[in-house]
Amino acid sequence: MKIPVIRDVLESNALGAKELEALFAQAEVLVVNLMSSPGAGKTTLLERTLRDLKAEFSMGVIEGDLQTSNDAKRIAGTGAEVVQINTQGGCHLNAAMIHNALGSFDLATLDILFIENVGNLVCPAEFRLGEDFRVTLLSLPEGDDKPEKYPPMFSGSQVMILNKADLLPYLDFDLKRAREGARALNKDLEVFTLSAGTGEGLGPWYTWLREAVFSKKGTAES
Amino acid sequence: MKIPVIRDVLESNALGAKELEALFAQAEVLVVNLMSSPGAGKTTLLERTLRDLKAEFSMGVIEGDLQTSNDAKRIAGTGAEVVQINTQGGCHLNAAMIHNALGSFDLATLDILFIENVGNLVCPAEFRLGEDFRVTLLSLPEGDDKPEKYPPMFSGSQVMILNKADLLPYLDFDLKRAREGARALNKDLEVFTLSAGTGEGLGPWYTWLREAVFSKKGTAES
Repeated sequence: MKIPVIRDVLESNALGAKELEALFAQAEVLVVNLMSSPGAGKTTLLERTLRDLKAEFSMGVIEGDLQTSNDAKRIAGTGAEVVQINTQGGCHLNAAMIHNALGSFDLATLDILFIENVGNLVCPAEFRLGEDFRVTLLSLPEGDDKPEKYPPMFSGSQVMILNKADLLPYLDFDLKRAREGARALNKDLEVFTLSAGTGEGLGPWYTWLREAVFSKKGTAES
Repeated sequence: MKIPVIRDVLESNALGAKELEALFAQAEVLVVNLMSSPGAGKTTLLERTLRDLKAEFSMGVIEGDLQTSNDAKRIAGTGAEVVQINTQGGCHLNAAMIHNALGSFDLATLDILFIENVGNLVCPAEFRLGEDFRVTLLSLPEGDDKPEKYPPMFSGSQVMILNKADLLPYLDFDLKRAREGARALNKDLEVFTLSAGTGEGLGPWYTWLREAVFSKKGTAES
């Protein structure tokens, strides 16, 4: 009895995600779905990215959390437009929630829409949100074995960010093992190693974002 | 259509958990459900606890993971009996899975059964496993705001372990904020601050475990 229902939920989400894709394509807005365990640094990465690229791009953020608007308040501090979704216990965002949040943005004026998913290394992997890219953060204190232990998240992402690299000297974390574990699941995965907290290593992430924005606009115009 | 089905799943789990409770009471085995985000240190805490208390107690472990038997292998290295459950993508253990795993243990000879849940700070909170205690680990690198952001996990636990305390000097983590955030949800929460990696601060955790074992046996005999 359980299986058909789960299929319904996923199928209905897939339809909603297709509609979102069309909306985002028409508006030529790059959509990035940020995912990770709780406390891996998604909000800190966003805060820094929003401040550093403010002069180049118009950016909006959808914040997903079980409870509180703590993260949305941090994001609003950067001056970016932000909407908070509280899932009331739900372990992931879905396409319908994103749909409902879009009314708060003028998509036509946005270059990038970031979606910060609920902190969870399992459930968000199953639910597409119409995004162009899925970016999974793995913070070094979580351990270099996480890609092998949570494969769907890493096999379904285009980018893995190894965050909190400033803690490397105090941890038993093998960057090579994490990278190879993730690429064994997903050979084309882009990997950036950085510290959103200190700001080191952010250059290649920004370069990647710029290219993604330009390529999205190029596709829409062609 | 979704809500009644979710209720069915939870109701059916609640019935299974009641049966497990009865089995565990009869066998006078203390059952501890360990929960946390991925990489917060559940397996490391178990490895150390199993080695340090080996002479005092007979202990078994049920390991829950999406994939791999990495953690079960680490636990087996301590000499403890261990069963691995692979949830194949499922974000939590449930009572039926625990039931199926019990065939591998001689409950009558065990003093403590540890259940290491899937690394997830959301889903496992909803599913009772017949346990006496729910112990949630929060590792310092995850941030002191996690209790307020993930309330069900902390309000439903009896113990919070603040792990990776050896990293405190390198982090912006306020022990008081984490403790008060969790106790605002759950005023009777026991809190232990320790480092499973270095071994510092484990004494009070062991004292708590000893008392829990004795009190379980006392209850069963009375």
